[in-house]
Amino acid sequence: MSKVVKIPDRQYYAVIFTSVRTDGDDGYKRMADEMVELVSKQPGFLGAESVRDASGFGITVSYWESLNAIRQWKENPSHQIAQKMGKEIWYKQFAVRICKVERDNISNKDDS
Amino acid sequence: MSKVVKIPDRQYYAVIFTSVRTDGDDGYKRMADEMVELVSKQPGFLGAESVRDASGFGITVSYWESLNAIRQWKENPSHQIAQKMGKEIWYKQFAVRICKVERDNISNKDDS
Repeated sequence: MSKVVKIPDRQYYAVIFTSVRTDGDDGYKRMADEMVELVSKQPGFLGAESVRDASGFGITVSYWESLNAIRQWKENPSHQIAQKMGKEIWYKQFAVRICKVERDNISNKDDS
Repeated sequence: MSKVVKIPDRQYYAVIFTSVRTDGDDGYKRMADEMVELVSKQPGFLGAESVRDASGFGITVSYWESLNAIRQWKENPSHQIAQKMGKEIWYKQFAVRICKVERDNISNKDDS
């Protein structure tokens, strides 16, 4: 499975989520898996790329059809609980940035 | 050192670079270090966040004052060589996305 997300030719938005994990799991893995499952069913969700290194530093970028779709995901009740837990327990630091993608350039040697 | 970049209150842009590395170094590490050094001197560069996992999947997000600053970095001669090497040798897949940051929300427990 390709990990680099290719979005069909259209206007789209990106949410860049950067974070530093606290030590210990504290229910993080289970909730993270649940969020991956849940977001995939969310209207307007186009895909996501996610990586975390051994030090606990991670970046997840999710792609969306509209700012409204991003807002609806933010307001999803299960996601609200995850956001609260993240802020209080799982993350030492985090940043969320809502972005409009102006243009992209995607290359995949597996396609050629 | 904090790894989550906090940008002062201003309009800014993000370049999301997602990639899957080929096997073997092939001069990658040396060039990557050189690019980190070089970009830090580039006019309009505001900071960057970067992570790669053991599988070779990585995301780097760099932040910029303007689209013009991003274009100038793209056209930097040493960076042009790195881009060519990246496309031909170092990356199986990659995506570059130029984004306008609409808003951000940053939390750092170390600040409190």
